[in-house]
Amino acid sequence: MMFDELLMIPGPVHVNSRILNAMSRRLIGHRTPEFSEIMRNCTEGLKELFGTKNDVYIISGSGTAGMEAGIATFSKLDRITCIDNGKFGDRLGKIAERYTNVDVLRFEWGKSIDLEKVEVSLEDGSQAVAFVHNETSTGILNPAKEIAKIAKKHSALVIMDGITSVGGDEVKMDEWGIDVAIVGSQKCLGIPPGLSAVAVSERAWEFYNERAPFYLDLSAYKKKIKDWQTPYTPAVPLFVALDEAIKIIQEEGLGNRIKRHRTMAKAVREWAVNAGLKLFPELNEYSNYSNTVTAIKMPEGITDKELRGTLKEEYRILISGGQEHLKGKIFRIGTMGNIGKRELLSTLVALEDVLTRKGVALPSIDSAIKVLSEVNQ
Amino acid sequence: MMFDELLMIPGPVHVNSRILNAMSRRLIGHRTPEFSEIMRNCTEGLKELFGTKNDVYIISGSGTAGMEAGIATFSKLDRITCIDNGKFGDRLGKIAERYTNVDVLRFEWGKSIDLEKVEVSLEDGSQAVAFVHNETSTGILNPAKEIAKIAKKHSALVIMDGITSVGGDEVKMDEWGIDVAIVGSQKCLGIPPGLSAVAVSERAWEFYNERAPFYLDLSAYKKKIKDWQTPYTPAVPLFVALDEAIKIIQEEGLGNRIKRHRTMAKAVREWAVNAGLKLFPELNEYSNYSNTVTAIKMPEGITDKELRGTLKEEYRILISGGQEHLKGKIFRIGTMGNIGKRELLSTLVALEDVLTRKGVALPSIDSAIKVLSEVNQ
Repeated sequence: MMFDELLMIPGPVHVNSRILNAMSRRLIGHRTPEFSEIMRNCTEGLKELFGTKNDVYIISGSGTAGMEAGIATFSKLDRITCIDNGKFGDRLGKIAERYTNVDVLRFEWGKSIDLEKVEVSLEDGSQAVAFVHNETSTGILNPAKEIAKIAKKHSALVIMDGITSVGGDEVKMDEWGIDVAIVGSQKCLGIPPGLSAVAVSERAWEFYNERAPFYLDLSAYKKKIKDWQTPYTPAVPLFVALDEAIKIIQEEGLGNRIKRHRTMAKAVREWAVNAGLKLFPELNEYSNYSNTVTAIKMPEGITDKELRGTLKEEYRILISGGQEHLKGKIFRIGTMGNIGKRELLSTLVALEDVLTRKGVALPSIDSAIKVLSEVNQ
Repeated sequence: MMFDELLMIPGPVHVNSRILNAMSRRLIGHRTPEFSEIMRNCTEGLKELFGTKNDVYIISGSGTAGMEAGIATFSKLDRITCIDNGKFGDRLGKIAERYTNVDVLRFEWGKSIDLEKVEVSLEDGSQAVAFVHNETSTGILNPAKEIAKIAKKHSALVIMDGITSVGGDEVKMDEWGIDVAIVGSQKCLGIPPGLSAVAVSERAWEFYNERAPFYLDLSAYKKKIKDWQTPYTPAVPLFVALDEAIKIIQEEGLGNRIKRHRTMAKAVREWAVNAGLKLFPELNEYSNYSNTVTAIKMPEGITDKELRGTLKEEYRILISGGQEHLKGKIFRIGTMGNIGKRELLSTLVALEDVLTRKGVALPSIDSAIKVLSEVNQ
């Protein structure tokens, strides 16, 4: 590759130079006060993003490792309800079934979830509910607050995959009543993949399963966090990257950051609708479009390869296609992390070029520019 | 820290600038031909280091994640024998007991293992044996070949923690008859912590346990390796670092690399003995001193804090103390990865300064210089 590529996929996202450079500083020992200070900054910073006063444990492993740690550690229960309206909801169920009985509530990918079915499943004796906050595969924001409210009525444990929402969209773990929440490093935090973090309420420990996998048993992380340490050797360069990312987030301010993410996603939607394209999600009164990734139906008259291939070859911009049975049927634009108007408009203009050349969309970049005037970056 | 520190602990090791710089290149997408090419180079390179034609699966996670993947994935058996003569042998047992019945063979830390006890345990019905090749906590190289030979008589599965031997010392997985072997990134490979890799024989799959943890279930990695991909988002910068490390190893040549590691450890031992210090391990006919870390008894008349503290403050060199009940009783010098005579002699000279100032050792650096004349780097 001669010139730089721009990652506009819904993670891993573009990593800016401050963070890239931080990783290549000399390697420090992990059992040192210097590392503990990094660990403290990362942990305290993440607490703000999760909206919690609870402990946050950082795991060297991808988002899936964090999801499994959050489910397996708290799986001393007879049945868990897993809400599946996308690829990552499906994965929650696959993980949970290795530890306990699972009631999978399946909804068509792209459709909103039906809260009544959640209520019925919990009335029926499920002791926990697990769901994906921001379903990256379909571009839907599931109703976290409402799910937690129903769970509370039944004293059920609430596990939320916040992998692609924490750090980019509003997450208020304590206020909403979420017991376990997970984030991944390569999404809204803006660092490379390889870390995940799990925030855990005090109450979750009532469901502690001592047969959880050794590496993913959060009780070992809980013991070590008192000294700002990890139980096993941490992926040091990624912790240094996270430390830098937390500083960047604090400089921007969480409120501004959330507003920027919401505005960028809104700009994509406005552009798409004005271009004559159709958004993929079908919303009901409780759900919303994702504020960090937008899924758009592939218009007639162009193939996935023509669209994404040309974008990559001519413009060096990567966007995502659909996953599994949605392959070729949708395309997805990530608006996560440390990018702003410049990166987003260049992506939409390039898309517009490719689509209008094939005669399958109308010029509509003005609508995106107008929305983006709401933010400064 | 004003000037650079030198890590001479038994991992994480010093990471040289070629590798540090590789990590800070722009982040690439992981579902791309560019990443697959890196994955292929890493995997093929690791096969040589393991001495195997088997598949090698790379996991984003620390060495412990690799150990657990190797044990849990192949735990469809009634009983496993775990050999424990150090901290990491102890950990093997703790991991295994989450999946099956365990017969732990305990030997005092620092003592060699008794092969007869292994034989008895396997005769008694154990279907597998797990052991640590190079026990970092005590500086002992356990007899891998002999253990595998006994296991073969009983058709038992052989799982070897090669975390601190692969890439630095001789490992001949296929020739010795090892079914599952594990390496960690931050040891002899010379990259930062955060990756582990597991090499797996065809036969091991007879013991496949479909209830292994989702993230650590190697069958998912096996499916994806055909396309040189990972099942979950990989820690991309660490894969790029590993790719660079493999190139460095190939430039040096594996034979030269093993000779360098062996010579460096020999130089530490010669220096120590001539200084009037005592090596910690008690060897029998089957075991050897480790070729990647040397454990030395703390002499009377100096404390751990005086020795390691002064070395750190005055010389910016980090060596390790003893772990758990060995705290204050031994100190350990790692000789792993991409370092050579210069780094090692500066460490030994600095140690000599601190020890002779307290009058607890004799000058003996000449003996180390002499041994090191056997290698060029």
